[in-house]
Amino acid sequence: MTKLKNDTLIRALLRQPTEYTPVWLMRQAGRYLQEYNQTRSRAGSFLGLCKNPGYATEVTLQPLARFPLDAAILFSDILTIPDAMGLGLYFAEGEGPKFERPLREEWAIRDLAVANPGDELRYVLDAVSEIRRALAGSVPLIGFAGSPYTLACYMVEGGASDDFRTIKTMLYARPDLLHRILDINAQSVTLYLNAQIEAGAQAVMIFDTWGGNLSHAAYHEFSLAYLQRIIAGLKREHDGVRIPSIVFTKGCGNWLEDIAAIGCDAVGLDWSVDIAQARARIGDRVALQGNLDPAVLFATEEVIQSETEKVLASYGKGSGHVFNLGHGISQFTPPEAVKILVDCVHESSTRYHGDNVKHRAN
Amino acid sequence: MTKLKNDTLIRALLRQPTEYTPVWLMRQAGRYLQEYNQTRSRAGSFLGLCKNPGYATEVTLQPLARFPLDAAILFSDILTIPDAMGLGLYFAEGEGPKFERPLREEWAIRDLAVANPGDELRYVLDAVSEIRRALAGSVPLIGFAGSPYTLACYMVEGGASDDFRTIKTMLYARPDLLHRILDINAQSVTLYLNAQIEAGAQAVMIFDTWGGNLSHAAYHEFSLAYLQRIIAGLKREHDGVRIPSIVFTKGCGNWLEDIAAIGCDAVGLDWSVDIAQARARIGDRVALQGNLDPAVLFATEEVIQSETEKVLASYGKGSGHVFNLGHGISQFTPPEAVKILVDCVHESSTRYHGDNVKHRAN
Repeated sequence: MTKLKNDTLIRALLRQPTEYTPVWLMRQAGRYLQEYNQTRSRAGSFLGLCKNPGYATEVTLQPLARFPLDAAILFSDILTIPDAMGLGLYFAEGEGPKFERPLREEWAIRDLAVANPGDELRYVLDAVSEIRRALAGSVPLIGFAGSPYTLACYMVEGGASDDFRTIKTMLYARPDLLHRILDINAQSVTLYLNAQIEAGAQAVMIFDTWGGNLSHAAYHEFSLAYLQRIIAGLKREHDGVRIPSIVFTKGCGNWLEDIAAIGCDAVGLDWSVDIAQARARIGDRVALQGNLDPAVLFATEEVIQSETEKVLASYGKGSGHVFNLGHGISQFTPPEAVKILVDCVHESSTRYHGDNVKHRAN
Repeated sequence: MTKLKNDTLIRALLRQPTEYTPVWLMRQAGRYLQEYNQTRSRAGSFLGLCKNPGYATEVTLQPLARFPLDAAILFSDILTIPDAMGLGLYFAEGEGPKFERPLREEWAIRDLAVANPGDELRYVLDAVSEIRRALAGSVPLIGFAGSPYTLACYMVEGGASDDFRTIKTMLYARPDLLHRILDINAQSVTLYLNAQIEAGAQAVMIFDTWGGNLSHAAYHEFSLAYLQRIIAGLKREHDGVRIPSIVFTKGCGNWLEDIAAIGCDAVGLDWSVDIAQARARIGDRVALQGNLDPAVLFATEEVIQSETEKVLASYGKGSGHVFNLGHGISQFTPPEAVKILVDCVHESSTRYHGDNVKHRAN
């Protein structure tokens, strides 16, 4: 494999010295880019994009052609795993993801089997390989998966939900059934992320979008325990190179110490967390990724710059920070705002790095 | 005014000794009760219920006829204030609240005027008086209002929102306009709650449903600062009796210390917070209200009881806890589940109170 020309992201995730703070954006390849919408039209649908490695490669690279981002992230969807399990993923226009066969009956849960990434998810691994070739070592490629609990939310509810009533009823009334689903999901995610690593992913991220809707006790039992199992099962190295892992729970503020203790290299922060406080709490154990409010990108150039600088200053000096938004970029974001953000991170962050800055021991 | 026969709630909110832990539920008068739905049919609509003191009194009392709750809460809506400001509140079937005239233009924001509770909101004060007469001193009546920021979310977005894009764009691009709205809202809420107190409300609660969607810095500047102003402007006593105040921000976990410092008597907790940790952090300054996951009420009797007991045990011995859900009760809740919950709180909590328990100094 080619040596990375820009490995700033990897070093920051491992809390090694860097010259500046690396930046990438959750959902950086997406609907706010007109070239994305054009490719999607050609592909016919969102799933058509995901399932065709050529299209997935094309849209993965689009934001990198526009902005000097420090990482690419595989273009895919967290729901590829339950789709591979046979639940029948589809996207109803304007309604978000849905499953033809939501997982609610005891017999169906007993029948649920671990997804084999080399088989039903081959198209994702092919996309990873093709993106790696296309990147030619310019920046690292991040692979990803949804957390077992977040996947289960969609699988049991059959789509997005306001109140998660069906899965929470299962959680409280039949925890054995939910644990069965989570066990299968955790095994599937572990195999899937390891297959992405073998195909070329140079860092991996787990998105726990809905874990923050659980009670304190339920989060630990039904989400974090499975995240920990996945992290324990991940390849730490591939081809002699360390593969850092990032865990992101939206609404993580209550549980930072617990998330930092599961063995991941970095913790993703949503925008409600003060990153200085997060660093004081867990910055000696993990790198931190985040956490600008995506809505800042609707403001003026001056405001985007000042809010970006506030996040950088809040984290402060030394390595261990990967700049990102606190959640996915909005489809309504003007692309020029992203350019302002990325340039500002690169230019303003140098003062927090380099020879004049005493690095923390790693 | 009649002396309260059951003042357990008031004492708990003031962290004075009680014999058991008092309990009431957010949205305890509502669609999960068939008698509520019958009254609503007669009233013709949700707003018809709110605006008619007779109907409002009837539905406020309905849950108390079924369950031995320790408080009544005024049946109303947080959006009565912007409706009184002339924004034109209406409820589209199955879509939640909407405004005919969302507040987006600079001229409209400049023209926005403080709502006069004695005038456009007279129907709410009449309901408070009528409910107090009907309660005849059995349990206290809680008055309430929405937080300035939460009201502004609906006023600017024109209804509920997934991403709060419009108000957040205003927050970052034109903070002066949002501060103008929040200032008017804070003045209105202060007058409104004081008018409710004069009409007979014996405790007041402010619902900050959407504050948790702000960044750490923005929460302090655009929500908490205005909550603090309201608390400072509230009548602390009426007719020689203390009127406790409760502040509830959904997603409050990151900011407990800051909320506890604004001068309120109690902090409402959503279910993601561990109440033992919350007590360790702020329990020496304020009472805590909460925080069972409302989804527990979909489970079996045994699970409802064990989850209820976990919350009681987590808070532990001594006064200062008001049992509640971590958010409003779901319309799909079986009423029998509420009976199980309320009975369990009353029976199980006595072990944490009484002569054998050393009370904290208040």
